[in-house]
Amino acid sequence: MNELRKDLIHGRWIEVLSESKSPSEYLLETVKRSTETTCVLCQGREKETPKEIASIRRTGTAPNTPGWWVRAIPSFKPLFQVEGNLDRRAVGIYDRMNNIGANEILIESPEHNIKPEDMGLDQMIRVIKLYKDRVGDLSKDLRLRYIFIFKNSIIDPCRESFSHPVSFLIATPVIPKNIKDELDYAKQYYDYKERCIFCDIIREELKVGERIILETRNFLCFCPYASSFPFESWIIPKRHNCDFHAISGEEVEDMGLAIMNILQRLKAVFKTEPPFNYFLHTAPNRVPRRGQWHTLGDDYHWHLEIIPRLIVKSGFELGSGLFIQTTMPEKAAKYLREV
Amino acid sequence: MNELRKDLIHGRWIEVLSESKSPSEYLLETVKRSTETTCVLCQGREKETPKEIASIRRTGTAPNTPGWWVRAIPSFKPLFQVEGNLDRRAVGIYDRMNNIGANEILIESPEHNIKPEDMGLDQMIRVIKLYKDRVGDLSKDLRLRYIFIFKNSIIDPCRESFSHPVSFLIATPVIPKNIKDELDYAKQYYDYKERCIFCDIIREELKVGERIILETRNFLCFCPYASSFPFESWIIPKRHNCDFHAISGEEVEDMGLAIMNILQRLKAVFKTEPPFNYFLHTAPNRVPRRGQWHTLGDDYHWHLEIIPRLIVKSGFELGSGLFIQTTMPEKAAKYLREV
Repeated sequence: MNELRKDLIHGRWIEVLSESKSPSEYLLETVKRSTETTCVLCQGREKETPKEIASIRRTGTAPNTPGWWVRAIPSFKPLFQVEGNLDRRAVGIYDRMNNIGANEILIESPEHNIKPEDMGLDQMIRVIKLYKDRVGDLSKDLRLRYIFIFKNSIIDPCRESFSHPVSFLIATPVIPKNIKDELDYAKQYYDYKERCIFCDIIREELKVGERIILETRNFLCFCPYASSFPFESWIIPKRHNCDFHAISGEEVEDMGLAIMNILQRLKAVFKTEPPFNYFLHTAPNRVPRRGQWHTLGDDYHWHLEIIPRLIVKSGFELGSGLFIQTTMPEKAAKYLREV
Repeated sequence: MNELRKDLIHGRWIEVLSESKSPSEYLLETVKRSTETTCVLCQGREKETPKEIASIRRTGTAPNTPGWWVRAIPSFKPLFQVEGNLDRRAVGIYDRMNNIGANEILIESPEHNIKPEDMGLDQMIRVIKLYKDRVGDLSKDLRLRYIFIFKNSIIDPCRESFSHPVSFLIATPVIPKNIKDELDYAKQYYDYKERCIFCDIIREELKVGERIILETRNFLCFCPYASSFPFESWIIPKRHNCDFHAISGEEVEDMGLAIMNILQRLKAVFKTEPPFNYFLHTAPNRVPRRGQWHTLGDDYHWHLEIIPRLIVKSGFELGSGLFIQTTMPEKAAKYLREV
């Protein structure tokens, strides 16, 4: 019998099918791979991109020249723009504001064809340090409410995308809906239990064990009990902290290992590179002022969500918001753990 | 400059791009059309389907024989099942229950190749009456919290789908997330303003006019100010009522005209049949007991949402819940109004 499971963190129910699909039963979307071996984001073509905002580079090399390991540049087609003011106002009974924010490309390597799971720990650490650096910098802008970092492994026809290894940063003057739901439901739980829901989940998962993929010194990697997508995996720090920017040096290293490890496991389980997204979930900006989140971070816990794009959601799921989970999280975790 | 608009009914912000895409700029997904001209849902093959639950048929014809105009049967592959008990319980810190509910196929016509917009008003009225009949019947089952009726015009590889004209009904023991959001935010508005947000929207749209596609005696058809999908259109009754089942005979007829009219307009604007879903949003079951929705329906207003499937949401949109609107609702309404 299929079962309904409650996703406590988003306040929604998920239907988990009892007949779990195995990895080979997913028809992987044809990944549109570019055949190019160099592009405008490669080392040596720095003059062809918008001017770099930040980089980690060899001592003595100048910005916008070769010598960098990782590099942040403005988006070529930004969804949000830095200049201007919010101009919040009513339009009849409705509300609007300008799209003030930031939209950056975080170039993960000077090499065109390297994959995150193959770039080596030193390089992965630089990528995470660049994430941290950009979050730290943008969190000073009081117009911004949220800084969202994510990776899209595929050439996405709808949005800006590159065959070069990149992550993206989008900073917004509002808190995106999914994050707002997480904050609201985590706060509801905290108000009731006076415990962080994510810390409770970590304890529960460690006790039960069957949804764990990997445990490192500082992180737990697991398939959530009521996830929305098959083989969805979370990487969460064991140490309570609402804010990704407070990650320690040791945690950066450990997180790098965890990301590479999970991506390698996904590749092994699917016997190919499944297309995936990952999303960094952290507390909103301006924590001391966040108003309704008065607990100042006791009720939220940053983490990374890795979502292989194995399926397209059906009309019913998109319309109702009731998602169907086609692979039981315990089975997905078993595949990923034992591969 | 792009702008952010607040979707008051779902508590989320939408980015509306200033460079609106015109209808011809959408690459319509190739609609997988079956070449078959008859199927198990056609008249004459009643014995090959699960036994009918309800039908509207010629006087003197027996159930499960020819003579019907519309017919409800159980799904061949139900996501929810009628038999059993909910068995709600904790699993560690989590919550689960059984998938008790209903999953029905609402066959819209005995004819295999007819389209909703071409079936004629009499037949469309029967389809809406069948919706009403099924909602009325299932709302007596106290285990069920929500009855969701929707249409999926395309052969959906993920779910049960047919080349025969059908709608689907899924009844669930929980309120699906998107509906719960609507109920919560509509209640929040009602608590603050002591007015139905949907009634306010109807008044605002009638005043402004630029997002209206069509106005009939009983219904308003418009493109919402902060919709998530391009060319998304709503059909909403002018008379306040939370419950679709309370639709009057005159409203049934008028709603049929409105649905056919909007679908014809979409076809004309896109110069082909765009794939679409529509979703009937109504109040949850057991209204007198709904507890947190204590206003007994003053704060909710049933309606139909028509969503052409012109785009696939990007990784950023799915991960953040911040949707990008690629055609300004005012422009979409203009195309649909003037075609």
